[in-house]
Amino acid sequence: MQTPWGYRYAQRTHQMASSAIRELLKITEAHDLISFAGGLPAPEVFPVEAFSKACERVLRDFGSKALQYSTTEGYLPLREMVVRHTWRYGIKVNPDNILITSGSQQALDLLGKIFINPGDLILVEAPTYLGAIQAWKAYGAEFVPVPVDEHGMMMDAFEEALRAGPKFIYVLPNFQNPTGVTLSEARRGKLIDLADRYGLPIVEDDPYGQLRYNGSHLPSIVVMDSKLRDNGEACYRGNVIYLSTFSKILAPGLRLAWVIAPPEVISKLVQAKQGADLHTSSLNQMVAHEVSRGGFLDRHIKVIKRVYGERRDVMLEAMEAHFPAEVNWTHPEGGLFLWGTLPEHLNSMEVLQAAIEHKVAFVSGEPFYPCGGGQNTMRLNFSNATPEDIRLGISRLGGVLHEMIGNKMVV
Amino acid sequence: MQTPWGYRYAQRTHQMASSAIRELLKITEAHDLISFAGGLPAPEVFPVEAFSKACERVLRDFGSKALQYSTTEGYLPLREMVVRHTWRYGIKVNPDNILITSGSQQALDLLGKIFINPGDLILVEAPTYLGAIQAWKAYGAEFVPVPVDEHGMMMDAFEEALRAGPKFIYVLPNFQNPTGVTLSEARRGKLIDLADRYGLPIVEDDPYGQLRYNGSHLPSIVVMDSKLRDNGEACYRGNVIYLSTFSKILAPGLRLAWVIAPPEVISKLVQAKQGADLHTSSLNQMVAHEVSRGGFLDRHIKVIKRVYGERRDVMLEAMEAHFPAEVNWTHPEGGLFLWGTLPEHLNSMEVLQAAIEHKVAFVSGEPFYPCGGGQNTMRLNFSNATPEDIRLGISRLGGVLHEMIGNKMVV
Repeated sequence: MQTPWGYRYAQRTHQMASSAIRELLKITEAHDLISFAGGLPAPEVFPVEAFSKACERVLRDFGSKALQYSTTEGYLPLREMVVRHTWRYGIKVNPDNILITSGSQQALDLLGKIFINPGDLILVEAPTYLGAIQAWKAYGAEFVPVPVDEHGMMMDAFEEALRAGPKFIYVLPNFQNPTGVTLSEARRGKLIDLADRYGLPIVEDDPYGQLRYNGSHLPSIVVMDSKLRDNGEACYRGNVIYLSTFSKILAPGLRLAWVIAPPEVISKLVQAKQGADLHTSSLNQMVAHEVSRGGFLDRHIKVIKRVYGERRDVMLEAMEAHFPAEVNWTHPEGGLFLWGTLPEHLNSMEVLQAAIEHKVAFVSGEPFYPCGGGQNTMRLNFSNATPEDIRLGISRLGGVLHEMIGNKMVV
Repeated sequence: MQTPWGYRYAQRTHQMASSAIRELLKITEAHDLISFAGGLPAPEVFPVEAFSKACERVLRDFGSKALQYSTTEGYLPLREMVVRHTWRYGIKVNPDNILITSGSQQALDLLGKIFINPGDLILVEAPTYLGAIQAWKAYGAEFVPVPVDEHGMMMDAFEEALRAGPKFIYVLPNFQNPTGVTLSEARRGKLIDLADRYGLPIVEDDPYGQLRYNGSHLPSIVVMDSKLRDNGEACYRGNVIYLSTFSKILAPGLRLAWVIAPPEVISKLVQAKQGADLHTSSLNQMVAHEVSRGGFLDRHIKVIKRVYGERRDVMLEAMEAHFPAEVNWTHPEGGLFLWGTLPEHLNSMEVLQAAIEHKVAFVSGEPFYPCGGGQNTMRLNFSNATPEDIRLGISRLGGVLHEMIGNKMVV
């Protein structure tokens, strides 16, 4: 169909691309295969019953408010809940430091909208979260990549990248998507010192911080960056914009997340959000608040950690048993993903094609590198398959890898 | 608080401004006054009980699906419902012509994202919907305004505006926000002919089309623009992108709307939406589908029409009784708003200040003119106040207007 829209697209659409992962997810849904490709929480642990009760109570007690337009900033009791949560993790913020967004993806989009001019450089981990690359490319962002090892961004490369003049630093310190690695406490301190020296602000994206299965909790960058008041209270200094979400600790289908930022940045984000979707669903905000209160969220996170922790262990054990010695992988202490590195002569896209034929899928690592690289890497999700499927899927994938590595060696 | 974010804002933030209306709404909420300022549906008619049952059923039968991530395009049964609805109104579209958005505001934002380069001209009614101005200014849009009379855009001015070379035409044909006027059928035909002659596509924004209280339904522009197949079926030609929403016929707190567009435009919108918020709340889409089916929506729209129709009548009668002869206003056949025009020497911002002192509020008309003008105009909402409050509020406002017009005449 020829329509007059075709030659009217804006310049920026040339920067936009449908996420390869989301396109792949459609294929994997259509087949009878075991998928480690998505980043989906386990539906078995969704607190469906608790949601049902919460919907009933919210609609009974506040029905017309839940169905009506509401403020762009977000439902105040929910913002106050985020304040209490943040306070518990070590710093004092106020409701005017909080914006509720329609998922963290919207927070990334709004940050792009208010900060990124075409050609601006953003310092990112390589590999980094695909959704951030996607959101920011649409605003013309370019990227300064900093390689990651098992302790997160490598600090020598980080300091060198700072000299390229990025507008801000984007970092996922805990069980990073896609690699699963965690930025060590020493490097967090170093990152803050260097950012301060170069006068650079930081966007800390922390969707998985509460999903730690072993090891000790590390303080968030936003907490380490706080300053002490005379009364001993640690207070928010405003250099770090912190993002987190209800998607991984409650349910992604609600599209609910939050931003912590200085009030003047919140005010710009609110302006941008007014133009983007007016506000986030009143009903969902009130239901999330209702379901979370009274300590439910803490108890529920324990359930999630038990289930995901077991699945991670099962995947690591199965990889140990079935993967060729030439393949390496990360050992995440939390989160949803781990990261495999194949011998350099193997292309993970080719492995993926073979894997799909053997009814197992993962995500090829290349798209997570904003400036190229990573052809021999792969992301595996362990939250969305049962332990039985993880064992079976990893043994299938191990077979494919043995065959491909063997073949290449023969050639 | 001095933070390193302050001097990092993108160029486009200079085009962004917090909606004067939304800021005003905060003031009016804080006082004990009668407000005709917002554009809010009447909470009394929200089908709270039906929502409660729908939430229960959706969570019982499809709980893990409702709480999980879903596709960017939207919940298929809901898109199919939109298809049946559109079919009933006269044209055949397919689910791949439909995108579910997080409110119509998001549809406007995504259209801006995929079509508008800085400096692009958009042809709009003057006055026009503020949310479109706000969304598109952030992408650097400029506007070609076409004046509106009681039958909508004036066609001589429209043809002249086409010669300015706009990228597309934006029109709200039914009970337009802010004026309440409806584009006549003859002008709809003329608009389509002229748009065709200039090869220009149209964005038709139709949030209120189903809320008509008297007169006959007029075919949508998208329907009039359709072409007949050999089998007699009217089919979508793709020149018109059509927007509508569940906000006015069901509940705005859900943030649910839809776009009808050619598949290749839907595909670009999907890419943009992936970067903007991944997808619209799965739970809300499923609940809206559940609540709407079985003819409920048709029955519910009848209730809304009865309530809003009465309120419109009460407001018009009260204005007749209390407003000075020097003030003119529109007589909308549907929708949520009417539009007043004061004598030219009066500034409606000054009237508003006096009105708020007398505990009644409206919205000053000036912000709805993207290129200036309208200082002596005002928008009045009749859906969100009870008939009693409408009578009282209009009599208060009439008193203010009599006083101000009298004073000016004395001076």
